[in-house]
Amino acid sequence: MIFLKNDYSLGAHPKILEALTETNMVLADGYGVDQFCDAAANRIRELIECPSAYVQFLTAGTQTNMTALSAFLRPHHSVIAPSTGHICVHETGAIEATGHKVNHVPTTDGKLRPEDIETVIREHEDEHFVKPAIIYISNSTETGLVYKKAELTALKKTCEKHNLLMYIDGARLAMAMTAEGSDITYADLPKVSDAFYIGGTKCGAMFGEALVIVNERLQEDIRWLVKQRGGMLAKGRLLGVQFDALLKDDLYLKLGAHANHMAKKLADGIIAKGYEFAVPPATNMIFPLFPKALVEKLKEAVMFERWSFSTKTHDSIRLVTSWGTTQEEVDAFLKLLP
Amino acid sequence: MIFLKNDYSLGAHPKILEALTETNMVLADGYGVDQFCDAAANRIRELIECPSAYVQFLTAGTQTNMTALSAFLRPHHSVIAPSTGHICVHETGAIEATGHKVNHVPTTDGKLRPEDIETVIREHEDEHFVKPAIIYISNSTETGLVYKKAELTALKKTCEKHNLLMYIDGARLAMAMTAEGSDITYADLPKVSDAFYIGGTKCGAMFGEALVIVNERLQEDIRWLVKQRGGMLAKGRLLGVQFDALLKDDLYLKLGAHANHMAKKLADGIIAKGYEFAVPPATNMIFPLFPKALVEKLKEAVMFERWSFSTKTHDSIRLVTSWGTTQEEVDAFLKLLP
Amino acid sequence: MIFLKNDYSLGAHPKILEALTETNMVLADGYGVDQFCDAAANRIRELIECPSAYVQFLTAGTQTNMTALSAFLRPHHSVIAPSTGHICVHETGAIEATGHKVNHVPTTDGKLRPEDIETVIREHEDEHFVKPAIIYISNSTETGLVYKKAELTALKKTCEKHNLLMYIDGARLAMAMTAEGSDITYADLPKVSDAFYIGGTKCGAMFGEALVIVNERLQEDIRWLVKQRGGMLAKGRLLGVQFDALLKDDLYLKLGAHANHMAKKLADGIIAKGYEFAVPPATNMIFPLFPKALVEKLKEAVMFERWSFSTKTHDSIRLVTSWGTTQEEVDAFLKLLP
Amino acid sequence: MIFLKNDYSLGAHPKILEALTETNMVLADGYGVDQFCDAAANRIRELIECPSAYVQFLTAGTQTNMTALSAFLRPHHSVIAPSTGHICVHETGAIEATGHKVNHVPTTDGKLRPEDIETVIREHEDEHFVKPAIIYISNSTETGLVYKKAELTALKKTCEKHNLLMYIDGARLAMAMTAEGSDITYADLPKVSDAFYIGGTKCGAMFGEALVIVNERLQEDIRWLVKQRGGMLAKGRLLGVQFDALLKDDLYLKLGAHANHMAKKLADGIIAKGYEFAVPPATNMIFPLFPKALVEKLKEAVMFERWSFSTKTHDSIRLVTSWGTTQEEVDAFLKLLP
Repeated sequence: MIFLKNDYSLGAHPKILEALTETNMVLADGYGVDQFCDAAANRIRELIECPSAYVQFLTAGTQTNMTALSAFLRPHHSVIAPSTGHICVHETGAIEATGHKVNHVPTTDGKLRPEDIETVIREHEDEHFVKPAIIYISNSTETGLVYKKAELTALKKTCEKHNLLMYIDGARLAMAMTAEGSDITYADLPKVSDAFYIGGTKCGAMFGEALVIVNERLQEDIRWLVKQRGGMLAKGRLLGVQFDALLKDDLYLKLGAHANHMAKKLADGIIAKGYEFAVPPATNMIFPLFPKALVEKLKEAVMFERWSFSTKTHDSIRLVTSWGTTQEEVDAFLKLLP
Repeated sequence: MIFLKNDYSLGAHPKILEALTETNMVLADGYGVDQFCDAAANRIRELIECPSAYVQFLTAGTQTNMTALSAFLRPHHSVIAPSTGHICVHETGAIEATGHKVNHVPTTDGKLRPEDIETVIREHEDEHFVKPAIIYISNSTETGLVYKKAELTALKKTCEKHNLLMYIDGARLAMAMTAEGSDITYADLPKVSDAFYIGGTKCGAMFGEALVIVNERLQEDIRWLVKQRGGMLAKGRLLGVQFDALLKDDLYLKLGAHANHMAKKLADGIIAKGYEFAVPPATNMIFPLFPKALVEKLKEAVMFERWSFSTKTHDSIRLVTSWGTTQEEVDAFLKLLP
Repeated sequence: MIFLKNDYSLGAHPKILEALTETNMVLADGYGVDQFCDAAANRIRELIECPSAYVQFLTAGTQTNMTALSAFLRPHHSVIAPSTGHICVHETGAIEATGHKVNHVPTTDGKLRPEDIETVIREHEDEHFVKPAIIYISNSTETGLVYKKAELTALKKTCEKHNLLMYIDGARLAMAMTAEGSDITYADLPKVSDAFYIGGTKCGAMFGEALVIVNERLQEDIRWLVKQRGGMLAKGRLLGVQFDALLKDDLYLKLGAHANHMAKKLADGIIAKGYEFAVPPATNMIFPLFPKALVEKLKEAVMFERWSFSTKTHDSIRLVTSWGTTQEEVDAFLKLLP
Repeated sequence: MIFLKNDYSLGAHPKILEALTETNMVLADGYGVDQFCDAAANRIRELIECPSAYVQFLTAGTQTNMTALSAFLRPHHSVIAPSTGHICVHETGAIEATGHKVNHVPTTDGKLRPEDIETVIREHEDEHFVKPAIIYISNSTETGLVYKKAELTALKKTCEKHNLLMYIDGARLAMAMTAEGSDITYADLPKVSDAFYIGGTKCGAMFGEALVIVNERLQEDIRWLVKQRGGMLAKGRLLGVQFDALLKDDLYLKLGAHANHMAKKLADGIIAKGYEFAVPPATNMIFPLFPKALVEKLKEAVMFERWSFSTKTHDSIRLVTSWGTTQEEVDAFLKLLP
């Protein structure tokens, strides 16, 4: 089987595993208060050029989103998110389980825009409505697209206008930062958000995400909230070790670039054979439209997921590449297309 | 520094790391639906001789407790726990954060007894009170003690009498099962509980706990609840790989026995020098009482935690050994005692 | 000022006030366990011809919705509701505050239809999504429309097909049951729902709603859940007294019919003057479309709310009549229209 | 039957009912934004001499406590309360249902003291524990006792020292303020608390409590939080009308004094017959200790509740008087005592 189903089907990138092995018998204190977490947090603060940022390592994406958002909000506050956002569809209502409504905003392509925010604000007039307090976007998006720096800046401005916070889910930040035409850098992130996370799980780590809280008002007592939501690892060191290795020598960006590169080759091959896409290919997740019969045939040799953009004659599928995807896999897939 | 502060100061036991390394580049599906988790779950079902048990791997103890307990309860249900229980003191109100009261029961030594349950039941008469629905105990306890099989059976009977469920936190189950005089086996666990967890983090794994749900009524939709509480790892395989290795060839019990053995040596040495204990030493956590001045001196060379059993002249401290504690460390510590 | 803003601008219907006055100095036990609540609950069970129904009186609509829905659901369960539903927009996220997502379904007119349910079910495949478990509709709807018996039966069938519960918010049930062409009776309600409430606040009571739980599985421990959500009145008798008086001699239906009748006169007058409606007038809430300048002028003499159906040239407003609206008020309003 | 079971067994004091009747057909806007609520809130601000206080009317005590406390706290915050406190025992875990732990403090008599707070603070060291953020006390207490002004001031000082808020449950504030030897006035309340409520339900109103938020930081968005917790009455006017009448011409204090006076007579009669009390009689709830056989006999003629202070030979019972208790009832009870 050719595996193009997701970007978390292997263990860790060898350098991560190596770092875990090398440090395995070093004694370290528990719960993320250790030399490895300190080093990794410092590295992040340097990369993003924001010495006052608070860095908290967590083990998974849903956990990070629910812990962060619920830490930042009062009970009547809601989160504005594009309706395709991970928190809207694929987190089993984790945000609502902490008591907060998510205002789903329909979008054309999975990207939130300032006018979407304005619409939600207009509809929430008084105390009979929830009070939108933060926006949630993913970069890259669940549709594989990337926000340009100007787009992020415009969103942040709209947030400031309405006294909203801005949160970026960076599960695939490595891919967003290395996509063709992408113009955001590490140092831009604190300027366009109040908090964001650098995704490890889908970008080469064994597991783990680095939540970065830029807004100092939101940093208070974060360790209490992480512990309460079950996100504090006794061997917190594991996260420090991984992120230190992942961010050293731009490994993170190299792995993102590799995933994007493999997806580009896949997309080019698909285009060359005359197929179209539900969403323009941009990062490591692409959404070709294939005739239904072909999709059935592909299922015999390829692991992938169907997506919801299907038409009468065509089904859309999601193909995902990762740091571990090889040229051979790409070629083998393309050979299957008539 | 001699490290006797906790049992999670190293990485993983070498065999666990080896298993993770060997399987690193094997493709596996996400979220715990993979060959490794299947194998590990089967191994657990065989060990406990309970083919209908549901096994769910999670990443950490607080996460496991809060996910399991909140999955099992309706909103007005409470949890009965000894007031020294982990959920009562060291989980930042994680259970309450899911909406449930914990009925703290004072005990003499950290062990819950049938009469404690009876007292709580008597005090909760009608709809103005929460409705106790489950008991929580840890084995071994936070005070380092072990429940004998007869004690667990008596608790289970009391639970059945009052229509209560019974849950065992097995963060240190390896130590409980291998303590001197302990008579519980894997196969006893399903008989004395509705659910329990086999702790990995403190017993040799890199991280992870295996929640075992014996009561079939409680198994429904567990994956939804795990996902919602942020406990589902994209690379769920990591947990399967670890538990499969940990439970193979009784490694788990061997590691627990080693920790207990090292603690026994420590305790014997302390007794030999004429000191007493706040709680009789039984597993890998022991609580000697030392003159306050000695405690101050020990702090210069040893990492440990103070405990709350102090008297006017003596402070109690907690010394913890692990699968990685060496004879050298034990000797070095004993040498410090006058 | 002519008051057409809502149906809760007066105190209680004189007969309700009279009943409260007459019983004022009668001793009664607390928390709804009293002779008056018993009598009112029995009266309800007789009217709906359902002796096994459980009746619980509460003080307000949002309280009733959040208490009932959260009592019926497990944490990962969601509620399907039309996006205009009261719980979607006007309850400040009360359902989400109890931990449950509400699946907002866009509709053309505020009424949920079987195909809407099918769509939601199709989109919620596995444990990464919330699990829809109940549907919420209001009768009459927030758009002033009424579900016919056949429509309710079709919804119930769809619910049964997908193992969903069905809940009816009857804040304006009196108006729904007495609208022109409406064919539902008290006795139909248990057949088309698992639970519903008979709204008092907007139908002549001083305050209060009667939650009726038809499905016996959902009745367990309801008093615990009501107490926990803050909905148990020490002087629960107040609710029993009111509902007994309200449901005696069909007062409830007479008051609903009066409100509808007054709205009909308003609507007829508006139509006679050549105006159109955003939604066809059906009960006591009607939504005429007036030129924007006229709306501005009306504001000087009439209290009403703007509604969200506005067009470029016309604004829609909501006019609401109640048991207390008089012919004089209707005439006075119509006189204002050119 | 002689009714001494509680202080909410009648409807409303006649003056309250009269005010509701007089205003019944006056039009008023919804949700507590009306002329009657304004007047009542102003009257409260004048009585307590605190023009910046925010007044929010709610319908019941548990609702008020859970709404206020959850509005004031972040998720990891806990409430310190004496273990006899209403929120600890008689609210079905309502506070925990909003996600917050309550730290139960054992006391000798139901009154919290500065040293109790110090103990809790000492035991909550770091992020593994909840963070105590507010203290909850009732005045008068659930044991019928009263805090003197100096005691309240000492508690407030201790709170300030530890950055804790202070909240007073005034379900029976009328009795606390008029007890023999009591020295607190309306104007003292804002000085010794961040928020408190003036209880109506047990002090002559038909229903309702007036939450007074003194601390301006805690006032933000309170209407959102009240609405979300189900506590906003469509006919909010009902609460304004009642509190305006209740607080006019010191009616509130007169009713509290009457209840105390009747209890005093009861207590004097009981003492005269040679019985003792579990707690010294102070307000309208008294706790005599009677031989078990006598308690059984009393049950035939009197409605009361048993209390938990029983000894081997004696049972304690709770006798409660109210604004409506008569001299005849007192005499009739005393006649029953041998």
